[in-house]
Amino acid sequence: MPSGKRGRFPKGTAVLDAARQLGVYVESVCGGRATCGRCQVSVQEGSFAKHKIVSSNEHISPKGAKEERYERVRGLPEGRRLSCSATIEGDLVIDVPQDTVINAQTIRKAASDRVIERNAAVQLCYVEVDEPDMHKPLGDLDRLKLMLEKDWGWKDLAVAPHLIPQVQAILRKGNWGVTAAIHRDMESSRPFIVALYPGLKNEAYGIACDIGSTTIAMHLVSLLSGRIAASSGTSNPQIRFGEDLMSRVSYVMMNPDGREAMTKAVREAVNGLIDKVCAEGGVDRRDIFDCVFVCNPIMHHLFLGIDPTELGQAPFALAVSGALHYWAHDIDISVNRGARLYMLPCIAGHVGADAAGATLSEGPYRQDRMMLLVDVGTNAEIILGNRERVVAASSPTGPAFEGAEISSGQRAAPGAIERVRIDPLTLEPKFRIIGVDLWSDEDGFFEQAQATGITGICGSAIIEVVAEMYLSGIISEDGVVDGATAALSPRIIQNGRTFSYLLHDGEPRITVTQNDIRAIQLAKAALYAGVKLLMEKQGVEAVDTIRFAGAFGSFIDPKYAMVLGLIPDCDLTEVKAVGNAAGTGALMALLNRNHRREIEAEVGRIEKIETALEPHFQQLFIDAMALPNKVDPFPKLAEQVTLPPRKSANTDGTAGDGAPRRRSREDRAARRTRD
Amino acid sequence: MPSGKRGRFPKGTAVLDAARQLGVYVESVCGGRATCGRCQVSVQEGSFAKHKIVSSNEHISPKGAKEERYERVRGLPEGRRLSCSATIEGDLVIDVPQDTVINAQTIRKAASDRVIERNAAVQLCYVEVDEPDMHKPLGDLDRLKLMLEKDWGWKDLAVAPHLIPQVQAILRKGNWGVTAAIHRDMESSRPFIVALYPGLKNEAYGIACDIGSTTIAMHLVSLLSGRIAASSGTSNPQIRFGEDLMSRVSYVMMNPDGREAMTKAVREAVNGLIDKVCAEGGVDRRDIFDCVFVCNPIMHHLFLGIDPTELGQAPFALAVSGALHYWAHDIDISVNRGARLYMLPCIAGHVGADAAGATLSEGPYRQDRMMLLVDVGTNAEIILGNRERVVAASSPTGPAFEGAEISSGQRAAPGAIERVRIDPLTLEPKFRIIGVDLWSDEDGFFEQAQATGITGICGSAIIEVVAEMYLSGIISEDGVVDGATAALSPRIIQNGRTFSYLLHDGEPRITVTQNDIRAIQLAKAALYAGVKLLMEKQGVEAVDTIRFAGAFGSFIDPKYAMVLGLIPDCDLTEVKAVGNAAGTGALMALLNRNHRREIEAEVGRIEKIETALEPHFQQLFIDAMALPNKVDPFPKLAEQVTLPPRKSANTDGTAGDGAPRRRSREDRAARRTRD
Repeated sequence: MPSGKRGRFPKGTAVLDAARQLGVYVESVCGGRATCGRCQVSVQEGSFAKHKIVSSNEHISPKGAKEERYERVRGLPEGRRLSCSATIEGDLVIDVPQDTVINAQTIRKAASDRVIERNAAVQLCYVEVDEPDMHKPLGDLDRLKLMLEKDWGWKDLAVAPHLIPQVQAILRKGNWGVTAAIHRDMESSRPFIVALYPGLKNEAYGIACDIGSTTIAMHLVSLLSGRIAASSGTSNPQIRFGEDLMSRVSYVMMNPDGREAMTKAVREAVNGLIDKVCAEGGVDRRDIFDCVFVCNPIMHHLFLGIDPTELGQAPFALAVSGALHYWAHDIDISVNRGARLYMLPCIAGHVGADAAGATLSEGPYRQDRMMLLVDVGTNAEIILGNRERVVAASSPTGPAFEGAEISSGQRAAPGAIERVRIDPLTLEPKFRIIGVDLWSDEDGFFEQAQATGITGICGSAIIEVVAEMYLSGIISEDGVVDGATAALSPRIIQNGRTFSYLLHDGEPRITVTQNDIRAIQLAKAALYAGVKLLMEKQGVEAVDTIRFAGAFGSFIDPKYAMVLGLIPDCDLTEVKAVGNAAGTGALMALLNRNHRREIEAEVGRIEKIETALEPHFQQLFIDAMALPNKVDPFPKLAEQVTLPPRKSANTDGTAGDGAPRRRSREDRAARRTRD
Repeated sequence: MPSGKRGRFPKGTAVLDAARQLGVYVESVCGGRATCGRCQVSVQEGSFAKHKIVSSNEHISPKGAKEERYERVRGLPEGRRLSCSATIEGDLVIDVPQDTVINAQTIRKAASDRVIERNAAVQLCYVEVDEPDMHKPLGDLDRLKLMLEKDWGWKDLAVAPHLIPQVQAILRKGNWGVTAAIHRDMESSRPFIVALYPGLKNEAYGIACDIGSTTIAMHLVSLLSGRIAASSGTSNPQIRFGEDLMSRVSYVMMNPDGREAMTKAVREAVNGLIDKVCAEGGVDRRDIFDCVFVCNPIMHHLFLGIDPTELGQAPFALAVSGALHYWAHDIDISVNRGARLYMLPCIAGHVGADAAGATLSEGPYRQDRMMLLVDVGTNAEIILGNRERVVAASSPTGPAFEGAEISSGQRAAPGAIERVRIDPLTLEPKFRIIGVDLWSDEDGFFEQAQATGITGICGSAIIEVVAEMYLSGIISEDGVVDGATAALSPRIIQNGRTFSYLLHDGEPRITVTQNDIRAIQLAKAALYAGVKLLMEKQGVEAVDTIRFAGAFGSFIDPKYAMVLGLIPDCDLTEVKAVGNAAGTGALMALLNRNHRREIEAEVGRIEKIETALEPHFQQLFIDAMALPNKVDPFPKLAEQVTLPPRKSANTDGTAGDGAPRRRSREDRAARRTRD
């Protein structure tokens, strides 16, 4: 258990051997010497009707001398046995625990609840090597390889070049007992000895890293137990070269050393983050043997030292889209000298390895249902599909969802408004800010808020305030602030030819302007139109389930996202935020190399839709400017939320007749209608 | 021709395609576009009774537009056709010439007469890559790989990491036509794109290098034609750390930075030699894509940056004995950034990759006859065997054969005596020196010799003078200078208790002392005893053929070597000097990767005999102190040379009763007998 595999074995078979014969992965470093403690199992006692057996601790051999020595020296949790030493003496149901942790100073919660089946690219293998013999003058390294083949089945091993001069000293220091770290990713590549230690080396770590335009996130994880030792993040220092991706591409085009400077900056930041997770996890960075990275295409190129200029212009040609394998050293990542680095494949010029990571994590291609996966940032990556077919696109949402281009917008930080409700009768708002647990209409809110101030509106609250303004009738389905409401509330304020909503009258004064609403409309229309295009490609009218990846998705309320029409109609319980799914995908690829093959194959199958080339996109975009949408019904949303009555699209010539470039004329037209 | 393969093909089949279907290797870089000119063939005209066909230029298609363009632009030798364009239109006998040379500034003689069938690890492949397409957003590199698979059959290509950032610019510079250099050595390794060029790149070179203790020798060769562009040598700068290998090991042991300094010195020398061969051959060093090295074990370790200390003491453990694969860059060899480096396997702690190279070159394992292969230096490497079984040993001959430890000894250089004859009646010598074509008894010799002086005796002459002294009766079969001969000639001179032979009474005075003779006896006894041990292992009384590898072997006269008993009795016509066989082996491994697999497999089969562990070796050594040998007859030699009558081994207690350490007592004993 939990694999459920079973078989018959002769009495006296070691449980570990039985597991291997069944194809059940049980970790072992010492190769059955009862010294590493990695191969722990436990017996489930009782009568198992399903299997027609009675399992009992009586049916496993008692602890022998080696196992007792291990228990005495290293400790063995109650009920745990070393499967290399314990032998089968009768019917048994064996649990292979997923939490076998050795040497752990602290136990942390996993990044996600999911259990990732382990099949890491790195394996630690302890062997005892024959001493040199003048009659059989094989080199020390060659005798080591022989033993790795004999004891562990490794054939045709290559050796990381930097190790070759160290082999003799390590063998002698270990008195001919050494642990080799073997790296093998693909079956088509030779396995490599990447590190070598005297005696038993009983820990190996890996990092999974998502390099975003704004933030770099990293997990440090034990490759032997799957335990997450630390997870952390840092800001991407490339921000100083340009806030968004295109300004970084421009920087490269304008500055001869720009590419190199940005490559250096991001690599240094990654190394700094490795320091941080190692300090948090109590791990020596030299014990990191494998690294998996995901990035958007421009970060991918800059991190790997590739000029991203081609990505800044049609046809948006990636230098390389397939998965890549490096020595971490080649990319200046300072971990173990023999560590490898794997970069997930990119899906397209605007749908990067991060989207591939999220796809691996959420697995639309593993579903029968139609899953929509969106990762919203400056560009939104959109994946839609199921077992049969997966399509992908990116849509240029711009930075509005991140609070940029919004008059009172700001990044999520203490003091930022994160939740908003508007009373539909009085049009009075209440809100919450990051760092204070009270709503603004609760006693003590303003006292507590003094620590940070009330500084602006972050991305999640932008969505909520615009949606609440719509639900409360302050704005029409066209997104126009209704000047008539100024008579109902002093919070509706005229600014020249348009109106604003005063959310908080403090210092600073926080308002939502007509331009803010237009920015959100443009962003959400771009996202929705991209989704709709993919739905049309798939020939579906609705999606079954929606996954919001990324920080933005973690904070927004799905209901408000749907009221605004960011996402298509769907049962609200089927809309889930999945956090940094790209990072989770990287973690999966780190812990199980089969997941690398899985996503490589899947990326080859995904059909990429270039929205800019689809003539229909413009109409979908225009329809999506309306709240929630000019043409699409939202029946499931309507079951939960009372939407304002919909105007007939045919009777109002002002709604959605303009693309972005026609915004100001459209604004004026809308205003004139109401004046 | 010359493969002799034949088949039937439909009319209109390109000759190149027919060759490939027959498994005949015909080079092609452009992939059948008639631009590289590598695939030249010619038609043998006439009636071929053996094949029952009449071959005629009428039976091959006339030159088409592409081939005519090639001929016009690049020129095509008389009778030559491009096999990619010429099609089969009737019966043909096709010659695949081995001398197809493109771009060659100078044509040089091959290093050896042998034709090495080509199957280099590097292949140049021109492809025309699809331009980027937003509908199929594969990366530029991925489209390149697709085309390399489609046009050339390369699957699962990896890419040298340094190339990845360059791919886009190169593709655009070549207007999507590029030449990739693909490296694949073993079938178990993924093929790698190691270099990429815009347009057609039509030349690829490799180097084959033998790093000896004293001399580094190198061939620069076209991987596309097998043409040797240059061959050169340089002295090993490690000499300043120690003349012989063991003194270099001592230097490492005594100096903390010794290993590093010697590694740096030899790598710099190799890079300097690359400069030299490139200048001689008119080749850009960046056009070198593959390197093959052979070395003795200590040079092997020092070159690769491995501490050789373990090789200085029993059990003489090599850090690594198997073949090794590097990026040349890893070893600081400055050629193309993507070039690979292959090191042949070592046979044992004293029988290195150089001996493996010589074994590959001479191929005792390819013979039915029993072949003895000896490479004489400070250590002699001895390989004995045939198709059935090969055994190997090394024997510590010391430096006497190289002129060291000889009172008037010197390295081979102008002015050194290289040939000696002694008149058996008068005991008067005549000799030749390096740099003068006359014998010393010929008119004008001394005038010509004034340019260099007569400076000493080099290795080949040491052998001759001792052998001539024996043949003329000056020394006995025990190697003792017969004091009685002093009465016959003033050239026999008493020095204290022993006698010397005055070879040349000049400035300096050149004599052969009793100690000189002892040194030669010790050296030749060590060599012969090693050979004899291997003959005993093989259960043979005689060898069929003898190969002398190395510089020493090239200069000594086999007859004198046999008179002295360096080598066992053999038909003199079967004793051949093969020059730098180790370097030739490296060249074979460079030009044909199958030769790498061949010698790797063979080294695994060779049985290594450690002479120091063989109890019988001491007796063989003692017997071999006598001239030519105390117990072994030399019947074939006796047919050609009148050997002095042999004393009965039983009646002379003074002959060969002492091992080296007993030399002085033995000398005294010998002297007393004659006094």
